Amino acid sequence: MVDILHRVGVKTRTPEKVYEALTTIEGLAGWWTDDTKGSGDVGGVLELRFPVGGFDMEVVELRPSQRVAWRVADGPEEWMGTTVDFDLRQDGDYTIVLFKHQGWREPVEFMHHCSTKWGMFLMSLKALVETGEGMPAPRDVQISDWH
Amino acid sequence: MVDILHRVGVKTRTPEKVYEALTTIEGLAGWWTDDTKGSGDVGGVLELRFPVGGFDMEVVELRPSQRVAWRVADGPEEWMGTTVDFDLRQDGDYTIVLFKHQGWREPVEFMHHCSTKWGMFLMSLKALVETGEGMPAPRDVQISDWH
Repeated sequence: MVDILHRVGVKTRTPEKVYEALTTIEGLAGWWTDDTKGSGDVGGVLELRFPVGGFDMEVVELRPSQRVAWRVADGPEEWMGTTVDFDLRQDGDYTIVLFKHQGWREPVEFMHHCSTKWGMFLMSLKALVETGEGMPAPRDVQISDWH
Repeated sequence: MVDILHRVGVKTRTPEKVYEALTTIEGLAGWWTDDTKGSGDVGGVLELRFPVGGFDMEVVELRPSQRVAWRVADGPEEWMGTTVDFDLRQDGDYTIVLFKHQGWREPVEFMHHCSTKWGMFLMSLKALVETGEGMPAPRDVQISDWH
């Protein structure tokens, strides 16, 4: 079992803003993908669509300004059975985001890609909260031939 | 045992340029850190220094335009015993870089940080080869309070 791990620090005194960006349709559309629909409540399903493909995420846990956890309800075959979570904590001027995408069966090439891509999207989340402008799909940073 | 994985595609018809950026002092100084010294030959040690701290990497394997592998000879305690490798292959207009930093004992918070930071440095490598200008330390992209 192999995991994707990341850590970014969002320069803000208000962790609520990071939490909102992870739990509201408007927030998710501001850093991950323009085409976000569904429900960000516990038990709800977020529908995230990209120029090619997309994901359905079931919201399994919410602790305001502390933790957001999703279960992949639908998406690429390699993502089925995996979970995504964000742990937040305030550390001085920064909201620290610890990210995990866990439960990958094999460290396939697509997992390498998703690891780098998650890093770029977390930088987009950071930019959204710090500057008001993220880089969600389809304006996301291209990292390779796989976009 | 947990690993850091990444995949980027460098838009170039000449994988030799990516290989050079991974194996020469000038190349490494162009995307990783300005302060790079030492030897990039097999058995040599690369000395990479940052505003805070640094790494010594022993070059353990070189296959031109295909593979570069290092063993961490000195660095942060969490890096001791770990290895870093880059596998390259040409795929149309792209040189695909598969990156692994393996052998971490525990998925500590510093590992989360290094995962995101490696992603940003690989984007710097991509930029160096594609545009002639990377973002090496100390001009690297800041991802958090830990830089």
